[in-house]
Amino acid sequence: MRNTFILCALLALGSYSFAQQPERFPLGEYQELADPKPHDSDEAWDQLSVPTRLSWGSTDIRYTKHDIPDVKISDRWRGKAWRGERVNAQAVLWTRTGIEDASIEVSELRRGSSVIPASAVSAHFVRYVMTDELNKDRKGGCGVRENKAEWDSSLVADVLDIVKIRDIQARSTQPIWLRVQVPRDAEPGRYKGTLTVTGKSADPMRLRFEVEVLQRTLPEAKDWAFHLDLWQNPYAVARYYQVPLWSEAHFEAMRPIMRMLADAGQRSITASIMHKPWAGQTQDHFDSMVTRIKKIDGTWRYDYAVFDKWVEFMMNEIGIDDIISCYTMIPWALTFDYYDEATNRVQFINTKPGEAAYADYWGSFLKDFARHLRQKGWFEKTSISMDERPMEAMREAIKVIKQADPEFKISLAGNYHPEIQEDLYYLSIPYGHQFPADVKKAREAKGQISTVYTCCAEAFPNTFTFSAPAEAAWTVLHAVAGGYDGYLRWAVNSWTIDPLRDSRFRTWAAGDTYSIYPGPRSSIRFERLMEGLQDCEKIHQLRSELKGGKLEKLNRTVAKFTPEGLAETQQSASEMVDELHRLLNSF
Amino acid sequence: MRNTFILCALLALGSYSFAQQPERFPLGEYQELADPKPHDSDEAWDQLSVPTRLSWGSTDIRYTKHDIPDVKISDRWRGKAWRGERVNAQAVLWTRTGIEDASIEVSELRRGSSVIPASAVSAHFVRYVMTDELNKDRKGGCGVRENKAEWDSSLVADVLDIVKIRDIQARSTQPIWLRVQVPRDAEPGRYKGTLTVTGKSADPMRLRFEVEVLQRTLPEAKDWAFHLDLWQNPYAVARYYQVPLWSEAHFEAMRPIMRMLADAGQRSITASIMHKPWAGQTQDHFDSMVTRIKKIDGTWRYDYAVFDKWVEFMMNEIGIDDIISCYTMIPWALTFDYYDEATNRVQFINTKPGEAAYADYWGSFLKDFARHLRQKGWFEKTSISMDERPMEAMREAIKVIKQADPEFKISLAGNYHPEIQEDLYYLSIPYGHQFPADVKKAREAKGQISTVYTCCAEAFPNTFTFSAPAEAAWTVLHAVAGGYDGYLRWAVNSWTIDPLRDSRFRTWAAGDTYSIYPGPRSSIRFERLMEGLQDCEKIHQLRSELKGGKLEKLNRTVAKFTPEGLAETQQSASEMVDELHRLLNSF
Repeated sequence: MRNTFILCALLALGSYSFAQQPERFPLGEYQELADPKPHDSDEAWDQLSVPTRLSWGSTDIRYTKHDIPDVKISDRWRGKAWRGERVNAQAVLWTRTGIEDASIEVSELRRGSSVIPASAVSAHFVRYVMTDELNKDRKGGCGVRENKAEWDSSLVADVLDIVKIRDIQARSTQPIWLRVQVPRDAEPGRYKGTLTVTGKSADPMRLRFEVEVLQRTLPEAKDWAFHLDLWQNPYAVARYYQVPLWSEAHFEAMRPIMRMLADAGQRSITASIMHKPWAGQTQDHFDSMVTRIKKIDGTWRYDYAVFDKWVEFMMNEIGIDDIISCYTMIPWALTFDYYDEATNRVQFINTKPGEAAYADYWGSFLKDFARHLRQKGWFEKTSISMDERPMEAMREAIKVIKQADPEFKISLAGNYHPEIQEDLYYLSIPYGHQFPADVKKAREAKGQISTVYTCCAEAFPNTFTFSAPAEAAWTVLHAVAGGYDGYLRWAVNSWTIDPLRDSRFRTWAAGDTYSIYPGPRSSIRFERLMEGLQDCEKIHQLRSELKGGKLEKLNRTVAKFTPEGLAETQQSASEMVDELHRLLNSF
Repeated sequence: MRNTFILCALLALGSYSFAQQPERFPLGEYQELADPKPHDSDEAWDQLSVPTRLSWGSTDIRYTKHDIPDVKISDRWRGKAWRGERVNAQAVLWTRTGIEDASIEVSELRRGSSVIPASAVSAHFVRYVMTDELNKDRKGGCGVRENKAEWDSSLVADVLDIVKIRDIQARSTQPIWLRVQVPRDAEPGRYKGTLTVTGKSADPMRLRFEVEVLQRTLPEAKDWAFHLDLWQNPYAVARYYQVPLWSEAHFEAMRPIMRMLADAGQRSITASIMHKPWAGQTQDHFDSMVTRIKKIDGTWRYDYAVFDKWVEFMMNEIGIDDIISCYTMIPWALTFDYYDEATNRVQFINTKPGEAAYADYWGSFLKDFARHLRQKGWFEKTSISMDERPMEAMREAIKVIKQADPEFKISLAGNYHPEIQEDLYYLSIPYGHQFPADVKKAREAKGQISTVYTCCAEAFPNTFTFSAPAEAAWTVLHAVAGGYDGYLRWAVNSWTIDPLRDSRFRTWAAGDTYSIYPGPRSSIRFERLMEGLQDCEKIHQLRSELKGGKLEKLNRTVAKFTPEGLAETQQSASEMVDELHRLLNSF
């Protein structure tokens, strides 16, 4: 069986690379990769008496593409929402005969004369992307995966397409994602609408849905208590959209992507202050947003045109303006770029924290950078950011920063080190690690931010393309349960070479590097993350309001979202998230 | 026989590359490559009754390294010189037994109480460098020579070493070059000196020499009428000396090299205003001396720190300040560099004269460049320079230059084109081509410079390392005879990878790319060129002074230095140069 899988995966790869020659970097309609997995036979499909069926399903399930879904037929979905909340539902369609030119129509939602307009409702064909699996020891998804055939590949439902009309193949399943953005000023009450699927030679099929708008109002994302930090990759956007870096077209492409982040409560702007801060670990490496020129007399000259344009865009057009995270002073490869006037080339210095050349390179820059940031009024928002590096190197780097300007904010995503934690305005530590209670309290008192991160290391919870959808919500709910200020993830749009079709990458389990797709297209993962983030804010609201037994009940339910809670419970992540969700809507 | 040569050449190469592992880029003592040629046998050498002999020889001869020289023994050399002239003589030593720690001593020159000090006299061991040969059709030395084995290689005497003590191998010939710089204020008359060779266990050997200082005075090189233009390559110096480009150490290394050029009457500073103006045809490609930044808003920013430092060095420290030749607007590969702020990379535009992108790239630059040059007071000295390119391209480039600033000087090394010659302040045309008499006159009247150039194309005259030494003088005398204002050669120090040992290059006949060696070391070629240049100035002086029969005789002798004169005469180049030389010292 294993061999068959590998063979199929190879065939899928092969047909993709050589035979089909699909459009590079599609933004509109595109063809999915071939399904490398065994699935329901033609005979099984052909036994279906009704050619095409449509039913409500669950947002917890990634329906497989070529299997008849195991679904309890239902034509009515009911949900609850706070005012200002975004709610999701998933329908599933399966067809023996296929549907040409299928499209989905959603009505406005009505409650007597009150209306949630159709523009607040959207429906998406859920599309299939190639994924792989956890490491063989099931302990996570880290490590190199150059040889894709070593990993079991499969097609999974994840992408929420923006293409509105498409052919649905015979003998296939087509999930449909429904999203309702409840207006903040909606009158509470029960709103009803319909979702209709039509096709060229198919009778329209209808599903009903209801959203019960509750009394409570969710604040705007920018006012949420939760500190969200998903690292943006502008370089991936320029490459995929084939537009010149930092051109108007580039910003136009980035605008809706970055707005998705703002809508999720994103706090930080990811800025790179050197070439390849992470040794080019993503398909599209980050480059320096700072122009750094070494003059022939050995002095440095800096220019911030790129940095300024990016930061101003994020602040003024997108509304993300809390922190400018500047990566990094301790890259994984200790080589530092500059344009060398003498040779008319970008050159690299090899040096490391503690050395004179390092102090010269960074000290000179940081002094000028501080001057520039103060001039722009951004100094207080800017943080010189590092990833986990050896303790001694971090200490030396901190020394250089403080020498350049003692008021510089410094941040780290890495292990908790008591020796340097005080110096770190923003410190994100790995899943499973804790801040000592007194330290966390002291950090709060000083206005320092203390969050948790996940990456390839976690088998659970994660947002790989094969992870259970509810894990996305679980992850951020864990941040609240664990007493952290928020959550950090190192990538949200570091796309693979062909991200719509293939989420597998040369390193790490598939999907690790992005949850927003080109288009932009949201994903099951991103929407479930968004649900979790909304629930985090609901918890925040309710904790300041509830008292006694209700508060205790809330806290008890929240407390399950920890490694300890997880070890005790018999519930699945989906059940836990669902339970909490219902509880939050019950007060 | 041919096969033996190739085998020997391969062995020489082999031993050089793999076995010996010689020092890279030596500046002091170094070992020559093995001699790939058959030569006098050990038996022949062993028949010599006197173990070591020393005699005056001729500067016209490259004595072979392992042959007993065919020389009429003479212990006294007599030369004549104008005051201020530099004169050369060559002695030759050959030894059956070898000499350990050989050194040469030269005395001051005395004439009663008058003295030419020893500091004005120098003696050099002549060293052997690997050369090849003309093309198989004997028509020149152009074309690719990647496979060295296809060309007959030999060791030739050319380098005038600066190392003063060295071991002379048994059974070998060691030429010695004597150079006397007659002070401009020397009293006329006959000066006598001695050259002494000593060694560890050898009796000192002495040669006498006399220089008759004549009444006439040669002006300083910077005042010579002849327009000399040997293109400098600063990039080769930085690589060979292993010093950072444009550092103090780099200028220190260049100083004595560029002074050699100034002493020869060099007029032009070779400046590169783009990356690889000649598509990297030399071992060390030229890069842009201009920093050219494309901002993210599409505007250009320029910086001239490198250009200014180089030009100021040449003008103020070296004294070469007539023309700043800026290469080029029409490179051989039509790709134009800039540092791109957006991508933090040096990028390239592919465009060509006549296109909008070309006009933008150059028009914008030239306007700013003109502003900068005027500010520095250099505008009148600067020439935007091109090599031969298709007529239409040159016309379009000239249009762009004139649009940027109609007063820009323009120069070309290429064929004579009546359509554009008027636009060319400085025009150098190939050997064998003539300016129409009326055009030459009109150009003179306008102060335009009209010279001749040679390159790989000439089998004769040339300065390949295997060319007859007198050809170097012949070449520049030809410029005077042909009625040109001077002479251009495209390279004087574009060194091969191992220039002291191997003058062969991946293209063109050996020695084409340089006549000054690292150290710097002069060469037989450079000294004979210098003699020719001195003679050119003597002709210039005498022509304004002599009348009647003497002037006619001078002009008749000069006129031989043309392709026509050459076709008529029975004399060799050496004889022609010698005859003219004697004539110039006879008036």
